[in-house]
Amino acid sequence: MNNIWLWIIIGLCLLATCYVIFNYVRIKAMPEGTDKMIKMSATIREGANVFIKKEFTTISIVIAVMVVLFSLFIEKFSGLTYLLGALMSSLVCIFGMKSATYANVRTANRAMETKSIGETVKVALCGGSISGIGVQALGLIGITIIVLISGVGPQNVTTLSGVGLESLPSYEGNGLISIEALLTNASIMRITSYSLGCSTVAMFNRVAGGNYTKAADISADILGKIRNDLPEDDSRVPNVIADFIGDNVNDIAGNCSDLLESFVATISATIAVSIGLLISVPTMALDFFQALYLFPLVISGAGLLGCLAGIIFVSIKKMGTNPSIELNLATYISAMFEFVASGVLTFVMFGGADEGTLALCGFKLGWISPWICLVLGLISGVAIGIITEYYTSADKKPTREIAEYATEGEAFVVTKGDAVGSMSCLFPMLIIGLSLIASGLLCGTYGIATAALGMLSFVGTTVSIDAFGPIADNAGGLAESCHLDPGVRVITDKLDAVGNTTAAIGKGFAIGSAAFATVSLIVAFVGNYGAHGVIIPDVSNFYVIAGCLVGAALIEFFIALLTNNTITSAKELADVGDKQLSDPEILTGAKEPNYNELVSLATSSALKKMLLPSIIAIMVPLIGGIFFGCNFVVGVLLGSTIVAIPRAIFMGNSGGAFDNAKKYIESGALEGHGKGSAAHKAAVTGDTIGDTRKDVVGVALDIFIKMMSTVANTLFVVILALNGVIGIIA
Amino acid sequence: MNNIWLWIIIGLCLLATCYVIFNYVRIKAMPEGTDKMIKMSATIREGANVFIKKEFTTISIVIAVMVVLFSLFIEKFSGLTYLLGALMSSLVCIFGMKSATYANVRTANRAMETKSIGETVKVALCGGSISGIGVQALGLIGITIIVLISGVGPQNVTTLSGVGLESLPSYEGNGLISIEALLTNASIMRITSYSLGCSTVAMFNRVAGGNYTKAADISADILGKIRNDLPEDDSRVPNVIADFIGDNVNDIAGNCSDLLESFVATISATIAVSIGLLISVPTMALDFFQALYLFPLVISGAGLLGCLAGIIFVSIKKMGTNPSIELNLATYISAMFEFVASGVLTFVMFGGADEGTLALCGFKLGWISPWICLVLGLISGVAIGIITEYYTSADKKPTREIAEYATEGEAFVVTKGDAVGSMSCLFPMLIIGLSLIASGLLCGTYGIATAALGMLSFVGTTVSIDAFGPIADNAGGLAESCHLDPGVRVITDKLDAVGNTTAAIGKGFAIGSAAFATVSLIVAFVGNYGAHGVIIPDVSNFYVIAGCLVGAALIEFFIALLTNNTITSAKELADVGDKQLSDPEILTGAKEPNYNELVSLATSSALKKMLLPSIIAIMVPLIGGIFFGCNFVVGVLLGSTIVAIPRAIFMGNSGGAFDNAKKYIESGALEGHGKGSAAHKAAVTGDTIGDTRKDVVGVALDIFIKMMSTVANTLFVVILALNGVIGIIA
Repeated sequence: MNNIWLWIIIGLCLLATCYVIFNYVRIKAMPEGTDKMIKMSATIREGANVFIKKEFTTISIVIAVMVVLFSLFIEKFSGLTYLLGALMSSLVCIFGMKSATYANVRTANRAMETKSIGETVKVALCGGSISGIGVQALGLIGITIIVLISGVGPQNVTTLSGVGLESLPSYEGNGLISIEALLTNASIMRITSYSLGCSTVAMFNRVAGGNYTKAADISADILGKIRNDLPEDDSRVPNVIADFIGDNVNDIAGNCSDLLESFVATISATIAVSIGLLISVPTMALDFFQALYLFPLVISGAGLLGCLAGIIFVSIKKMGTNPSIELNLATYISAMFEFVASGVLTFVMFGGADEGTLALCGFKLGWISPWICLVLGLISGVAIGIITEYYTSADKKPTREIAEYATEGEAFVVTKGDAVGSMSCLFPMLIIGLSLIASGLLCGTYGIATAALGMLSFVGTTVSIDAFGPIADNAGGLAESCHLDPGVRVITDKLDAVGNTTAAIGKGFAIGSAAFATVSLIVAFVGNYGAHGVIIPDVSNFYVIAGCLVGAALIEFFIALLTNNTITSAKELADVGDKQLSDPEILTGAKEPNYNELVSLATSSALKKMLLPSIIAIMVPLIGGIFFGCNFVVGVLLGSTIVAIPRAIFMGNSGGAFDNAKKYIESGALEGHGKGSAAHKAAVTGDTIGDTRKDVVGVALDIFIKMMSTVANTLFVVILALNGVIGIIA
Repeated sequence: MNNIWLWIIIGLCLLATCYVIFNYVRIKAMPEGTDKMIKMSATIREGANVFIKKEFTTISIVIAVMVVLFSLFIEKFSGLTYLLGALMSSLVCIFGMKSATYANVRTANRAMETKSIGETVKVALCGGSISGIGVQALGLIGITIIVLISGVGPQNVTTLSGVGLESLPSYEGNGLISIEALLTNASIMRITSYSLGCSTVAMFNRVAGGNYTKAADISADILGKIRNDLPEDDSRVPNVIADFIGDNVNDIAGNCSDLLESFVATISATIAVSIGLLISVPTMALDFFQALYLFPLVISGAGLLGCLAGIIFVSIKKMGTNPSIELNLATYISAMFEFVASGVLTFVMFGGADEGTLALCGFKLGWISPWICLVLGLISGVAIGIITEYYTSADKKPTREIAEYATEGEAFVVTKGDAVGSMSCLFPMLIIGLSLIASGLLCGTYGIATAALGMLSFVGTTVSIDAFGPIADNAGGLAESCHLDPGVRVITDKLDAVGNTTAAIGKGFAIGSAAFATVSLIVAFVGNYGAHGVIIPDVSNFYVIAGCLVGAALIEFFIALLTNNTITSAKELADVGDKQLSDPEILTGAKEPNYNELVSLATSSALKKMLLPSIIAIMVPLIGGIFFGCNFVVGVLLGSTIVAIPRAIFMGNSGGAFDNAKKYIESGALEGHGKGSAAHKAAVTGDTIGDTRKDVVGVALDIFIKMMSTVANTLFVVILALNGVIGIIA
């Protein structure tokens, strides 16, 4: 029966992949428009391709080294699953970005040809769905294949005294670490190393992509506005084209790998928790354990089906003129499908379990408990999204107040924005905290993990709509720089505005699920080392508290690193761009600037700074654990999570609010303080400060904490073994 | 023997108080200078007095309500100790601020009369020492009296099964809470409620004082620089005088109550830990327990003697021309005295203890263990201070880089400053984390508490030198506005610059000790409720993690509240000031502006916003505990501490670096970008943003976390009792 489930999921993923390929072919076949449009979009595409090519050359080396280390010193199979994770994530990135750079110009062209919002939405959504469905299908198929090959059953959790299956070792360890220590961790190590492969690529992508896009964006702003007094996005400024490329690099490729990582981390956390449950309830029936183990995969498969249903329905039906309604419809269909299907599947998987086992595993309301948690997660995600929108939308009080304070100058606008950013953390964090208690009460740690699953089980639709935004944005940029009819820009602007709102909700899901997934991973880590006889410390243990402080320090360090990198690169790019602009022919527009120089500088500058953050995320739990023991590591994970979540919310929301406050002033809503006024200038300062916050730092923080927790789970036997040999503190 | 210790400490405190009074009389007897100086300083003094009078009227009401609540519903004696704490803190504030407003004009006059740096330093230091020695003497005498009256011995920790002293209840509980529940907590409740009294006054002072001074400062800046293009500190701007007053209100009164609170919280945490030790090692000899209990008092008494030695020596000796050396000398003498004396006293108190008890209490190296921790704390404090100075001094790379980025405009300077602020958290937090592990390893929780004691045991000298800064600053302001000889300003500027450096080191001690004290209080809380049979959760318990998230959210909310309050008040003050300036006679200088209108508006605006933060700090642990239980409360305490420490460091250091980057540019060090340049304007923006961060938010955060932890310790029997009756989660 178990294998049938897995084959069904694999079949679904293949079906979804066919749909993605079908859309890709469809997009490529569409007409691109005028010669100028063909040329401009080719420049963007080529620049993006160059970046991706160089980036993945570096990433390949790191991945190769990691695969060798894993295979040689830890376990052969885990090296392979790590590689598979990295591969899946890379595929989605490359595929998603390529399709977006095809879709942008075709979206602009469709708008030009049809003058119809509905028709234009379809093109952009078709492009976005390639990323979205791709994320869910490829992420899921990889982990399902691993489970299929490893098999599901206690033979993968062997030699735990208590489980009583000492005689069935399922694989061999190699090298330094004793096989005995590894045996208990086979299954979890394979799954989490797959997740770690995804995380590694996501971290590289976010750090490099964020640096690229914001350095280009900010340097273009300095050159245009501060040094040369040119209008925004003027194509004489050589940095502008790098800015266009950056949108694809970060908002498409970065976002795809980010959410793929979140999705996979959530599934792997649920599986890790299910193994933890087996350890603590060794009397559990095999059937029940297998249901716990397979549940996240089955739910995600159903979610994928829901995404397909939602996206295909909206693609086929006749479009109205309000794109917001259409996009929300796709989300609602996917969510409703998941709501019903997950209820049915929960009954199928847990309905037959005996009450005693359910009670021992903390299922307080019987078989239905995990489903309630799943729905709770879903609702929490939506609620956080709505709050995010409240704090960042130009229609609401907080952002409008920022705009009003802009009339008092730069210091006021920034201070007010900081206050709004901090304030916006309160309710999302209370929601996360209370949902954590509620899901924990209803269904134990398994409930916490399934709540995260509820948020991410239809990630395909969320990402499709997320990717819709930058495609529409790029289409608008092309419309402007290719001097298309202003009506085209009106259409793409409407699409872009809708994209902003949906992106806010997407961010709610991302941060909420990160919190739940990390907590699940921390609990799994503690459960795992508890099973190895390490004394689990109480909360007032000073190793734990010291670890918390070190974890908190790491987050601040990570923030400092990313922030500093971005503005250092921006200054570099601005200086090079300035040199070009000192040629009077370029400034008059008689000569085309050398875009390539900027593109390759932005690329090399971003890639140079890509490695350190990932190294920190991998090395700190490992080295910290080896020297100071597992209790210290738990502290580091907890401290970094507790600090990173409010920081991520702060960065995202203050950045978003600054952006929209600027747009609000530009729309002329603030009487006497329109575009070009002192208030507008102050708001632009806020927006530029917010750029680094929301698009570089905020989006990378959740990957950082999940990556550290995944590393701890993957390597905990290594930590344990080496700590015993060379640790200062056991 | 115990009572002899206590009487010696009380004698020392009285001696120190005599010295304070002597200095106060001496300062008042000095000449004030020209008529203009007398008039100006009287205006400042009156404004400050009005503020303090109104503030303490409000505070008195809150304190009275709290005293009644404590006495009626909890315990009579704890209500009184709460009152005593509030009284001591208030006395120091009022006395310190009064003496500072006398000392500022006299410092300016001495500089004018003698033209000697050495002589001027003596006046400012004499003024500062009133605050400094007052803080340590009054804080210590209060808690010593309580211990003297309550007695030291297990009869105060009665009815603990295990301790075996069920037959000796030492006091009666009243009202709602069952006496039985209270009996175990008598001693700790009396001590912590004294500490809570100090915290309450400190919180009010910091919140109201910060709001007052920064609203005045920022509004004066907007009016001068943005709206009317006047030079800085121009006396035609009516907000300028409120700014002068604010310096005394926040930097003197606020700082005094802040450090008094830190000092007392540290002593009370050590006592709480010693009771926790008795609970876990019930076989402990009475002598040994009493030594643990009295140790923090004895050490603080020795510290007070060291402070007197340092300050008096520097006041008497012939002064050189480098005030930095003189002030450092005072610190070194105090620290060296404490170093030696605490070593001797540790031997006296613990030298005779039997090895078994020492081992059971976690004294790994025998009797010397707490002394090593104390010294470790002292060194950590100095190290954090040096790092703080590195990140905020205009002589060092980080601040200079901020200044250089100012040439690229506002967005760059702010982003760079944010990066520096985040980066500056790394090493202080690593130091705190590692010292925590080291002191925990050496001497258990008691070691952690004594490390905090090491940082604060000569707080008298630290505060004296801290208070020296604003006195010199105010003297400089008076020299400018009374048009004294430029040589006077040169002298006061030198004094001010020295004050900045010493203030940086002072901040290192404040934040470091806050971390250690809070950790001690959390451990004490957990130990206390563990003794009541509540199951102490492991670190992966989801109530704890949910509590952590809620605690983190609270910190962001607190930051948002204070930030928002400050700029709202600033805008209000600016609008009123603007109305006055619309009178052309005021703008030409023909008519004196109505300073009083601004002073009273700043006062009422600050006082209105004073209550909410304190209410949050008191109510959240209480309400949270009653509904969600003690485990949730521990989470809240831990989460808020972990988030608040890096935020406090960030706020202080980014603010300090912005300030000095601006000064660096003003000094003309950046070629082509002097005063009045675009770069200078950008740096001023950074400085204004930093004002709220460093002087309002950063300094209040550590009080907030200590106050919550103290509330939890004080009220834990109430939480426990009511949670049993109406709690959702036990």
